[in-house]
Amino acid sequence: MSTLKEEKVFKDPVHSYIYVQDELIWNLINSAEFQRLRRIRQLGTTFLTFHGAEHSRFSHSLGVYEITRRIISQFERYNYPDWPKEERIVALCAALLHDIGHAPFSHSIEEIFETDHEQWTVKILLEDTEINHILAAYAPDLPLKVAQVIQKTYSQSIVVSLISSQLDADRMDYLLRDAYFTGTDYGNFDLERILRVLRPHQGTIVVKESGMHAVEHYLMSRYQMYWQIYFHPVTRSSEIILRQIFKRAKQLYTEKYTFQWMDPAIFSLIEGTLHLNSYLSLDESLVQYTFSRWQHENDQLLSELCERFLNRKLYKYITATEMPEQWLEEIKKAFTSIGLDPEYHMEIDYPMDRPYDIYRTEQPIISGREKAPIMLLEKDGTLTEIASKSDIISSISGLHQGRFHLYYPEEALIRHRHQLSARIKQIFNIQDEEQSSND
Amino acid sequence: MSTLKEEKVFKDPVHSYIYVQDELIWNLINSAEFQRLRRIRQLGTTFLTFHGAEHSRFSHSLGVYEITRRIISQFERYNYPDWPKEERIVALCAALLHDIGHAPFSHSIEEIFETDHEQWTVKILLEDTEINHILAAYAPDLPLKVAQVIQKTYSQSIVVSLISSQLDADRMDYLLRDAYFTGTDYGNFDLERILRVLRPHQGTIVVKESGMHAVEHYLMSRYQMYWQIYFHPVTRSSEIILRQIFKRAKQLYTEKYTFQWMDPAIFSLIEGTLHLNSYLSLDESLVQYTFSRWQHENDQLLSELCERFLNRKLYKYITATEMPEQWLEEIKKAFTSIGLDPEYHMEIDYPMDRPYDIYRTEQPIISGREKAPIMLLEKDGTLTEIASKSDIISSISGLHQGRFHLYYPEEALIRHRHQLSARIKQIFNIQDEEQSSND
Amino acid sequence: MSTLKEEKVFKDPVHSYIYVQDELIWNLINSAEFQRLRRIRQLGTTFLTFHGAEHSRFSHSLGVYEITRRIISQFERYNYPDWPKEERIVALCAALLHDIGHAPFSHSIEEIFETDHEQWTVKILLEDTEINHILAAYAPDLPLKVAQVIQKTYSQSIVVSLISSQLDADRMDYLLRDAYFTGTDYGNFDLERILRVLRPHQGTIVVKESGMHAVEHYLMSRYQMYWQIYFHPVTRSSEIILRQIFKRAKQLYTEKYTFQWMDPAIFSLIEGTLHLNSYLSLDESLVQYTFSRWQHENDQLLSELCERFLNRKLYKYITATEMPEQWLEEIKKAFTSIGLDPEYHMEIDYPMDRPYDIYRTEQPIISGREKAPIMLLEKDGTLTEIASKSDIISSISGLHQGRFHLYYPEEALIRHRHQLSARIKQIFNIQDEEQSSND
Amino acid sequence: MSTLKEEKVFKDPVHSYIYVQDELIWNLINSAEFQRLRRIRQLGTTFLTFHGAEHSRFSHSLGVYEITRRIISQFERYNYPDWPKEERIVALCAALLHDIGHAPFSHSIEEIFETDHEQWTVKILLEDTEINHILAAYAPDLPLKVAQVIQKTYSQSIVVSLISSQLDADRMDYLLRDAYFTGTDYGNFDLERILRVLRPHQGTIVVKESGMHAVEHYLMSRYQMYWQIYFHPVTRSSEIILRQIFKRAKQLYTEKYTFQWMDPAIFSLIEGTLHLNSYLSLDESLVQYTFSRWQHENDQLLSELCERFLNRKLYKYITATEMPEQWLEEIKKAFTSIGLDPEYHMEIDYPMDRPYDIYRTEQPIISGREKAPIMLLEKDGTLTEIASKSDIISSISGLHQGRFHLYYPEEALIRHRHQLSARIKQIFNIQDEEQSSND
Repeated sequence: MSTLKEEKVFKDPVHSYIYVQDELIWNLINSAEFQRLRRIRQLGTTFLTFHGAEHSRFSHSLGVYEITRRIISQFERYNYPDWPKEERIVALCAALLHDIGHAPFSHSIEEIFETDHEQWTVKILLEDTEINHILAAYAPDLPLKVAQVIQKTYSQSIVVSLISSQLDADRMDYLLRDAYFTGTDYGNFDLERILRVLRPHQGTIVVKESGMHAVEHYLMSRYQMYWQIYFHPVTRSSEIILRQIFKRAKQLYTEKYTFQWMDPAIFSLIEGTLHLNSYLSLDESLVQYTFSRWQHENDQLLSELCERFLNRKLYKYITATEMPEQWLEEIKKAFTSIGLDPEYHMEIDYPMDRPYDIYRTEQPIISGREKAPIMLLEKDGTLTEIASKSDIISSISGLHQGRFHLYYPEEALIRHRHQLSARIKQIFNIQDEEQSSND
Repeated sequence: MSTLKEEKVFKDPVHSYIYVQDELIWNLINSAEFQRLRRIRQLGTTFLTFHGAEHSRFSHSLGVYEITRRIISQFERYNYPDWPKEERIVALCAALLHDIGHAPFSHSIEEIFETDHEQWTVKILLEDTEINHILAAYAPDLPLKVAQVIQKTYSQSIVVSLISSQLDADRMDYLLRDAYFTGTDYGNFDLERILRVLRPHQGTIVVKESGMHAVEHYLMSRYQMYWQIYFHPVTRSSEIILRQIFKRAKQLYTEKYTFQWMDPAIFSLIEGTLHLNSYLSLDESLVQYTFSRWQHENDQLLSELCERFLNRKLYKYITATEMPEQWLEEIKKAFTSIGLDPEYHMEIDYPMDRPYDIYRTEQPIISGREKAPIMLLEKDGTLTEIASKSDIISSISGLHQGRFHLYYPEEALIRHRHQLSARIKQIFNIQDEEQSSND
Repeated sequence: MSTLKEEKVFKDPVHSYIYVQDELIWNLINSAEFQRLRRIRQLGTTFLTFHGAEHSRFSHSLGVYEITRRIISQFERYNYPDWPKEERIVALCAALLHDIGHAPFSHSIEEIFETDHEQWTVKILLEDTEINHILAAYAPDLPLKVAQVIQKTYSQSIVVSLISSQLDADRMDYLLRDAYFTGTDYGNFDLERILRVLRPHQGTIVVKESGMHAVEHYLMSRYQMYWQIYFHPVTRSSEIILRQIFKRAKQLYTEKYTFQWMDPAIFSLIEGTLHLNSYLSLDESLVQYTFSRWQHENDQLLSELCERFLNRKLYKYITATEMPEQWLEEIKKAFTSIGLDPEYHMEIDYPMDRPYDIYRTEQPIISGREKAPIMLLEKDGTLTEIASKSDIISSISGLHQGRFHLYYPEEALIRHRHQLSARIKQIFNIQDEEQSSND
Repeated sequence: MSTLKEEKVFKDPVHSYIYVQDELIWNLINSAEFQRLRRIRQLGTTFLTFHGAEHSRFSHSLGVYEITRRIISQFERYNYPDWPKEERIVALCAALLHDIGHAPFSHSIEEIFETDHEQWTVKILLEDTEINHILAAYAPDLPLKVAQVIQKTYSQSIVVSLISSQLDADRMDYLLRDAYFTGTDYGNFDLERILRVLRPHQGTIVVKESGMHAVEHYLMSRYQMYWQIYFHPVTRSSEIILRQIFKRAKQLYTEKYTFQWMDPAIFSLIEGTLHLNSYLSLDESLVQYTFSRWQHENDQLLSELCERFLNRKLYKYITATEMPEQWLEEIKKAFTSIGLDPEYHMEIDYPMDRPYDIYRTEQPIISGREKAPIMLLEKDGTLTEIASKSDIISSISGLHQGRFHLYYPEEALIRHRHQLSARIKQIFNIQDEEQSSND
């Protein structure tokens, strides 16, 4: 297994073309486990807010591979001594496969069923799969090496740095790709310039000092993407519905409710007995098909939630800087009084409760999620942390912009408005009389 | 029901924004039947060739609506006497809903199961659906009017012309959208310029003479898109697999085979007893989920075909200008001799056997598919057919560029190469010895 | 004079098309004074740093007109009561003509010869010019009204606000245009979105609250453009050369030096006796032609400086956070010792000494340059200053990022390196031996 | 002289970045003769039609260099045996310098004064210039080699093929660049794809067979650019004015007219005694400055023509498929009768009389301008001419789309309409009464 007789290309809207020169990479792309990524959207439920965001983890994974390939090919062209040339294949495989263990709508599924996509990635790499066989056929220790890169324990830390750092191939691809498919300008930055100023340096990737402004632009783009796209409250609303569905199904299972229909893999997922083969059968088709069947379940709550998700009847939200406990209790009481279930019909969300991290240099808020800061390589060979040189980065690195959102089913409140107190109506801005349609 | 208090916008990568000013349109978009279009890809299996092409009929339908809205808004601004202002709502609804009756992977399903998406569209408009109720609440005769536009029988022919002609909002959106999502440059043309030169004229839409070059560019873009994207042989290969799956399932049903699993709607589809509710449950989730279950069916052929589709193990193809019957017989015999089934393991395809039409002015090849030619409005008020003025359009309007492709499973031929005659091996370019991987 | 029988369009790379509906506007564009703007580059000497920046004030002026036209056309479509409809023509004329009084390389010429482009603009509007005649033919008081808008004394302050504020048509066009022609991504922001959220409100233009993030993006883009493009030290170097040329010519005139060649308008400019007709003959052709003749003047300094400008032999620069007087004295002494003239062969520059203003809310640094802050219009009708709501804007509004640059002729220092002290050589990084070309 | 210690980059809107790795190239760019190209627009008078087209031959020359560099760098990466590696520097220099001999508004000047930019290019390469010294310092025979490439006599024909063929770096850059700066979409094609399919083959550049569609797209783009941009009748009108100015000045010189002002280089140009130094002083500044002085000459015709050019008071035109001699005589008589000079106030133009060539495979229309056809490299190693495989190319290669245009000063005809015969008025569409401005 080696270099392809003829280089293969994929037309890609973000990188123009994706180039495959190695038979190993070609075979990995054609494996069943990798093709499965076509059936998992990159941005989960975001397509319900930005209809263009229908792109899959398949295209993102190719993109991360391509950026990594370009970085390495430049390191090789200039013969940088700090780049270990023998790591090329390990890095390319890790870039291509870094998301291979994702479930459909990963964050929601991981939260409710306590699974972890990184552990599944490692299983796919090390257990009996097409991918494992392809890697092992190339070199018996390759599956393990790639798994170590994913787990950030690989001895050659520079390879980890390529795939997972503040300025890694993963982020660079997803910002550009998500901006392209949602149709926003926010995520654009000068990829070509950034690739040009990256340097391998003592086991990590650093940035040539002259590239500081390009990195500033990248970080500002990232900042905007988080607030405009990733933390968009409508997307959050659809994620909440999704999580409520899984939560309800789990609860019904506990209560020994008889489902009219359930796919075996979903059953194992709820039961906590999922094996690799079943895990790999999980994709968005299965989840959506499941919801379309559960629309007709006898349990009203499950049925309602599935109908909400499929037909995009999302929860509305109100926003506040504070949400005191007493006030929430009052709302719950009011909700209960009109037949809503506060467990399922309301949810509070604070934007920071999520596994994204705005650039920061101090202590990470969410332990285990920290990424090394971006270092500038000065002309004299010393390293400086970028926020200490860039006023704009130091400005944004301390920002905590979030506010609380409370999500709820608006139609129910309007329908039962006669039963609500003036105070509750004011909170949720419910008019006493339904407005005539000619207003 | 009337103008929205606040205009709604959708961020769209192709048109930048899509603007909704009418409560009617807003409600139609939020109906269950319209949201279902999110689960049907615009380009069917094309994503298996161009991985970016994962966009849905939902986003295309919004785009056709938006182009129609812009055309009408311009007609209104300039007060063109030939535009019947009272038709605005009918036209916008027809634009938005023109694809509402599509099944997942429509062309294949229509071919095997002899359904017709236009008839389903009419049913959705006229029978008991959310869309029907929303339209009828606006005006009792609106469902019928919209259905007539779809069926091209509407008395105001200019409305039909907006939605369905050589230069209609449908084509303009799909060329731009498919170019954007596949990442090709071929489909780009100057939409703003074309919209500026359209004029309502005696019951049809014509082009101001000064816009001839912009239309040339549009037609050349269309020409390229057909050959580069829509007729791409790899996409054809995936469509063939898909059709073989449905054909096989139908055959097994006829043979009273016991399926381990089948969704009721698929059953009705095969049986030919599909009702509207079941039809609306058909989406790509259901089809893909079905295939993932059929991968494990006992019927080898069905299982193999489903596995091919899901894991993208497509048929390879050879190309020729002629495919004489005798030669095909020879191939079929050879295929049978190595255990292949010529009914399922080979298929001949001639690019012109498909419901796309390159611009032409003479007789339509496929009856019922003809569209009116593009007319130029001269300064003196006369009309001229564009191909009579434009050398480039008259050049391409007569072209028949297609060649035959024969699709087949290459791995099987390689595996059984020792049993194949030299002639067959030559036809399919099968080497006598598998090449060592170091070549 | 009124509406054109047929709308005229200009193809524009930034706005796609520029639309002219009024005969008045069409005639103004075709006036000699407006056509002169084709011979003055928008970004002065920036083309010597970014070779794409060869665009003229002509195209920028059309762009400002077009943005203003779109804003007004939207205000009219929605019938906002706070927009005075009768001001349309005044606003469009002021937008089109706001830069009409610019000299070639304005900032340098204004500084050396103490002219002011705004005063010239007013003269062009009010004195005997084609533009004055065209405006007056439309309405006798139109020239004065437009002049008042330019001078910010117009009674309808909302018109001034359109042309000159923190978020005006001028800035919006130049950021997009300069980004396009230099080829950078920094200046891109979502113009369509911003235009949608502008509202006329009590004599000024405000932003609908939901547009806050779009304005953040605009301000961040502006921030980047200033640091990447407008304050680029190489551009500053070419501006310094230019200013030195004018300074030298003025000095020589004072000393009664006999020029071999001088255009009469340049003579009047130096003498301070420039009349309107001569002013209008000033363009970049004249300046460049003058320099090409002065290359051959007997005065060594003038000749050298002109040769530097035409052949782009710019001064190099060193950067520092402090430049104490004593240190500069030392450098001047060293420069003099090797035959350089510290008056002309060195210049210190601090980025903030220039008529650009990063967004700020407090006191303006440069008096007379302040612009009103951006106000958000809340749903309840109150106004809030944007920096009080947006953390990112409040972060950048206080930044003072500049450092000192000292510009000097590097070749002279290299040539005379044997005469320089070790300390001076270290400051300017001059090697003792010229490096062999094979290093 | 060799590899730069640090690669230099130019930000370029078309190619994103232009990379310079060789000290030789860097020095050539910094030479006076190359910097002069900043003062000559790439598209001559086209900016009077498309205001964005203000880009210079400087940026185009960098672009041709960059495309050539990318092609060669790919040839080197894949080690194609038919690429002579030692020709890299010759090819890069020829690419960079191919336009170095252009005068301002070249085509007009060459026609009137019978100069030839190719000969001047050779002089600049071989005589006493900065460029000659830089080249000769690298290798004594380098100036001659580069000159031979320009003259198409170089022994290594593949180098000529890179710079000058149907699919050369020159055309690829100008199509993309002119499309970008005019703001049209017509010229876009997939440069990256085309670069990927070019192959060196027996002394020429051919195209891998799989690249046929990309080349089709390129040729169709070229076709559109010619008709939309390069042959635009308004641009032709401004070129005619320009040529008339030079013709008039030459005539006045012959008649021993005393010019109030004339630059020495213009004088030599008219006299036919131009030396290299004077030639190099010719740029658009000089030409425009000259015209601004000639506006005030006593000769009415010269003064009028210069005023027309500077203030864009161009000739209008009428279009016809035939222009019989008798008919023209009639027009000339009518023109003379109202005081116009048919020598200067009218001109007939047939689009094909110009040094552009639509793709063709047969005999070249203009001798000496033919370029080798594009050859496809089949998988079996044979070559096929592209038009024999591509229906679309064979369709357009035979087209002769041009029509006659007759240019004339419309205002004069309107002013004297009472003296014109009905027939002449009809030809030029002159109304009997001036239309009131309120129409």
